[in-house]
Amino acid sequence: MSAAAIDHLFFRKLVGDDEAAALFSVQADIDSMLRFELALARAEARHGVIPAGAVPAIEQACSGFEPDVDALAEGIGNDGVIIPALLKQLRTRMKEEFRPHLHFGATSQDAIDTGLALRLVKANDIIDRRIEDVIDALQALEARDGDIEVMAHTRMQAAIPVTAARKIRSWRDPLIRDRARFAESRGDVEVLHFGGAAGTLEKLGDRGTAVTADMAGELGLRAVDHPRHSERDGIAAYASALSLITGSLGKFGQDAALMAQNEMGEIELATGGGSSAMPHKKNPVPAEVLVTLARFNATLLSGMHHALVHENERSGAAWTLEWMILPQMVVATAAALRLAGSLARSISFVRG
Amino acid sequence: MSAAAIDHLFFRKLVGDDEAAALFSVQADIDSMLRFELALARAEARHGVIPAGAVPAIEQACSGFEPDVDALAEGIGNDGVIIPALLKQLRTRMKEEFRPHLHFGATSQDAIDTGLALRLVKANDIIDRRIEDVIDALQALEARDGDIEVMAHTRMQAAIPVTAARKIRSWRDPLIRDRARFAESRGDVEVLHFGGAAGTLEKLGDRGTAVTADMAGELGLRAVDHPRHSERDGIAAYASALSLITGSLGKFGQDAALMAQNEMGEIELATGGGSSAMPHKKNPVPAEVLVTLARFNATLLSGMHHALVHENERSGAAWTLEWMILPQMVVATAAALRLAGSLARSISFVRG
Amino acid sequence: MSAAAIDHLFFRKLVGDDEAAALFSVQADIDSMLRFELALARAEARHGVIPAGAVPAIEQACSGFEPDVDALAEGIGNDGVIIPALLKQLRTRMKEEFRPHLHFGATSQDAIDTGLALRLVKANDIIDRRIEDVIDALQALEARDGDIEVMAHTRMQAAIPVTAARKIRSWRDPLIRDRARFAESRGDVEVLHFGGAAGTLEKLGDRGTAVTADMAGELGLRAVDHPRHSERDGIAAYASALSLITGSLGKFGQDAALMAQNEMGEIELATGGGSSAMPHKKNPVPAEVLVTLARFNATLLSGMHHALVHENERSGAAWTLEWMILPQMVVATAAALRLAGSLARSISFVRG
Amino acid sequence: MSAAAIDHLFFRKLVGDDEAAALFSVQADIDSMLRFELALARAEARHGVIPAGAVPAIEQACSGFEPDVDALAEGIGNDGVIIPALLKQLRTRMKEEFRPHLHFGATSQDAIDTGLALRLVKANDIIDRRIEDVIDALQALEARDGDIEVMAHTRMQAAIPVTAARKIRSWRDPLIRDRARFAESRGDVEVLHFGGAAGTLEKLGDRGTAVTADMAGELGLRAVDHPRHSERDGIAAYASALSLITGSLGKFGQDAALMAQNEMGEIELATGGGSSAMPHKKNPVPAEVLVTLARFNATLLSGMHHALVHENERSGAAWTLEWMILPQMVVATAAALRLAGSLARSISFVRG
Repeated sequence: MSAAAIDHLFFRKLVGDDEAAALFSVQADIDSMLRFELALARAEARHGVIPAGAVPAIEQACSGFEPDVDALAEGIGNDGVIIPALLKQLRTRMKEEFRPHLHFGATSQDAIDTGLALRLVKANDIIDRRIEDVIDALQALEARDGDIEVMAHTRMQAAIPVTAARKIRSWRDPLIRDRARFAESRGDVEVLHFGGAAGTLEKLGDRGTAVTADMAGELGLRAVDHPRHSERDGIAAYASALSLITGSLGKFGQDAALMAQNEMGEIELATGGGSSAMPHKKNPVPAEVLVTLARFNATLLSGMHHALVHENERSGAAWTLEWMILPQMVVATAAALRLAGSLARSISFVRG
Repeated sequence: MSAAAIDHLFFRKLVGDDEAAALFSVQADIDSMLRFELALARAEARHGVIPAGAVPAIEQACSGFEPDVDALAEGIGNDGVIIPALLKQLRTRMKEEFRPHLHFGATSQDAIDTGLALRLVKANDIIDRRIEDVIDALQALEARDGDIEVMAHTRMQAAIPVTAARKIRSWRDPLIRDRARFAESRGDVEVLHFGGAAGTLEKLGDRGTAVTADMAGELGLRAVDHPRHSERDGIAAYASALSLITGSLGKFGQDAALMAQNEMGEIELATGGGSSAMPHKKNPVPAEVLVTLARFNATLLSGMHHALVHENERSGAAWTLEWMILPQMVVATAAALRLAGSLARSISFVRG
Repeated sequence: MSAAAIDHLFFRKLVGDDEAAALFSVQADIDSMLRFELALARAEARHGVIPAGAVPAIEQACSGFEPDVDALAEGIGNDGVIIPALLKQLRTRMKEEFRPHLHFGATSQDAIDTGLALRLVKANDIIDRRIEDVIDALQALEARDGDIEVMAHTRMQAAIPVTAARKIRSWRDPLIRDRARFAESRGDVEVLHFGGAAGTLEKLGDRGTAVTADMAGELGLRAVDHPRHSERDGIAAYASALSLITGSLGKFGQDAALMAQNEMGEIELATGGGSSAMPHKKNPVPAEVLVTLARFNATLLSGMHHALVHENERSGAAWTLEWMILPQMVVATAAALRLAGSLARSISFVRG
Repeated sequence: MSAAAIDHLFFRKLVGDDEAAALFSVQADIDSMLRFELALARAEARHGVIPAGAVPAIEQACSGFEPDVDALAEGIGNDGVIIPALLKQLRTRMKEEFRPHLHFGATSQDAIDTGLALRLVKANDIIDRRIEDVIDALQALEARDGDIEVMAHTRMQAAIPVTAARKIRSWRDPLIRDRARFAESRGDVEVLHFGGAAGTLEKLGDRGTAVTADMAGELGLRAVDHPRHSERDGIAAYASALSLITGSLGKFGQDAALMAQNEMGEIELATGGGSSAMPHKKNPVPAEVLVTLARFNATLLSGMHHALVHENERSGAAWTLEWMILPQMVVATAAALRLAGSLARSISFVRG
């Protein structure tokens, strides 16, 4: 199924990104939730919340687990979350005596939000690496072509001559700042979510904090002093950081498309897409797609901010909206960075 | 790959819809474009634009065609559209003498926009059928429970007693109006797009109109007097009609979730989702998801309206944004209608 | 106060519209609500719901009424709606015996939504007249310059030569269709809202329908069979129709800005804005502002669709969001049409 | 004129904010631009860019300047910006020999963006002070009522008992984090914009940096190494920070409205709005309006991110969109904080 172009087998090279999208496959999704359950079990056993003997049982249940995906789909259709159905399948792989110790004291949102956090760590590494690459590519472009004279345009009209360096810097400097903001917002999402039914870890008594610290350490996430089940500011701030990146790249793409107009002729693009009807054309496809991805994320960002109105201790309505939106924004950002790096390397400013 | 929850193998029963999503699979996408090429060839042959002998050659090339999807993906990554790569693959299945007659006088956008129109005809039939079903289910609910007294609430406070019929009508009447608006907007999108490179069918001389009429007849689409490559008002109006449906269903879902609060106890839901942490709970999952889908489409609608700013005779930036958004809105609408029908059948008003 | 540029004394000539904005002044707002109260009183008296003697008392209270605006502001700050405070001020102008007969059986939302409907009738006449004017202006432009050859551009690249008529038609035809959709949606909003506390006119017994019909006749609005207090599909559909207009005009503006680029030189604009720094520049200001207004309405439209999730019998949260958004969309539409008419008259295509 | 509720004389106490809105009055707007021109002149004279004698002439022109607002409105209608018309009016108050020295080397965007920055400094102080006040009010509420037992709700269903402290913390902690993010983003917008026609200060030769530093010092803004005329990431990041605040407050309002439902009875609100039809009602108006303002800003934020696609060295289309949106977001944020402080002080949890 691929209603979203970002997932579609033949749109994925245009607006999708294989490396980032792999983090949102069914397998990656389930693996991340299993990592949560394993880290939970180990930490709880370490602190005597569950018997030590439960750990090997849980590890074996998770190891080589091949989910019945249709049953999971049925489950989420009923429960709104996948965890009850997933636990049911895992428990069939465990002796009865150990079953209560799986997911003990946790709630679905802990596993799901933590699973997302684990995958965002990887996505964020990809994104950060690629921002650096685009910055480098623009630096190299400036080093080579920066002295070339181009016409500045204000309000779509020729203004005064400036150097190409001036233009390139207006593409690069925002990315440098966006990268810093993005790094800040990583701290907002690379956190462990562990709170239990209503966020109070009521089943762990006074061992909640210790178990949380252990889990965070094993998973490479930050422990926070209480769970953020209904506090979605971090996720929304992160989404904002993604949209700033794609927005800045959208300005780059828009400028490139304008400068590449035949009549403008200020840059040439090494590659240009073909046309089925007009063989002479070289279309600035990556430049245009950067604009698309900018507007895609600018649109979706609104939904992530509406999701801040997350009522009570868990809102199915608001939380599900996040699932429908955020992964797409991540993949769009990775895609835009990939296209931008490629575009930056394909641009030559034309010597007057 | 499934970054969009709507496509994800296990989210699809929650926020997706198998029947609608099938229309956006790779196979359905390609099949619809082949239907365009076949209707084009037959109509052109009928009017002497291409030799009659080209038609069997084109039919054979399309019949049993199994695309090299990776090559298509590479193609769209370069060209921004799939058609050049698709035609290249089809032409390898044709004798050289007939190759120029495939896609003669057309442009990529003709095939792509028409392919979408063909699939929207089917999607719209699904949607219309389901709106009718929800209206009927609400009608039945009113027939059975309409006389039961409930408390009207204004500004989140108890107001005065009213009958359940009053409430049910506020769910049903908007759907009746939305259905009429939707029917109107079908005419906006179930049209043939055929204009050639810059929309003037310059290669067909004075036979453009006749060929267009033939093609429209064969494809079951409406012929319009000139192509709407850069005129996206119909698509944006259609997206608005979709969002009206999901928005009205969102009000239904929100009301159901409020009335199903334990403390309110005005309705019971026959099915309720479970919780991994609190076995006693019956969560009004479909009701909440209706709110999610309403806000999802309300969010995406903005992007479709930004896409109205479609510059010149074809905008890669604006058009690609439509592809990223519209199929998701269609599937979300089908999903919301499915959930609403089910919810309407599961509600019982509680007799005082 | 003018945080919104649309209201700002010196932005109003750029993105505002005096004629449309006048409909949303405090005076116009209050006048429309008084018209509701007067029509209500007259109709109720006619059908014996209130004594006939109450009508002159109410008419006198309304005649020459100069509201204490600060007290109204305090009132709305407390109650969320203006009506309780307004009625209080009107009642001080009435003999005690007649006071209960003012606003009898009605609720705040009746007066407010009907007041808006009355002003939208006028706004819609302005908008419809102006759409016609823009269509005419484009028609005249085509008549004069339609044969001039211009270069079609697809994907920001020169494609093939076409006539100016081809381009002009892509600006005009969507407006013709948008005008028809707008006319349809007028029926969605030019309705009388009269339902009482929870929409059941419980205080009017069996005279509700007759009183409603009378009021509708006097006010020039359509009577609907039950009030739409919580059914916001009509308002959201209307907002969609506004955004289609500004979106189509945004494409016109974007094309004009692109064609007016010095390097493109395909059109000249009779007027061009100046620059404080570069006296030689002629900026295509109206063209750019059409793009701004398109994106402004595309953005706001989302909020109007979120407002469809209007819980129970009245949602303060959702309804107040409509007030914050819709008038701005109306003024933006009127402004865009004014600018577009002016732009269309200032364009000359350049003869090759 | 008041199409925007935020500006409307009687809506301003509901969704507006007098203190913040005053920063966007015509007078405040002009005063801030005059501050720019004065600081520019003084710094330029100090570094010999303009003759020292020009400074008193400019100071006198600015002092007691009462603008012809209608002429300014005409000017912006033509030029898209106010500065040419403003300078023209100021120059009539100056001897001819000094006129060229006013606004020397600057461009309209320098004055406008810097004028906004100066007013945002004040707005940000208001906002920061009020966030602190809300945090304090919630702290006090927790101190008094924190131990009271309430029912946690997940997915709109009763879950398990928790303390009121748990709920209050979910309102307070996000604000603490949002305040930190907001403080960071202040650095993004409290900057001096000074770049001249195309951002290169070409008229100041090698004295550009020194003049910039002087101006920044006088104005209390940060000097940046090159102007950000077309780099709108800072403004968009700031808008995101505003929306995070209103979003977090929207969750608080939504929770309050839910807990204040008669049937829920978990809190009482000291003040409740009245109804014109049902005198017994106490409507949780501020709680609902917090949800409205959250969704208002979540909606508008999208437009600010679309404005990141700011082409070339100045985009009239994208920049004007910022003017139409950002001041409204600032006022909405101030209003939400004011309402939230008041709501927090009016809540009493009900002792079981």
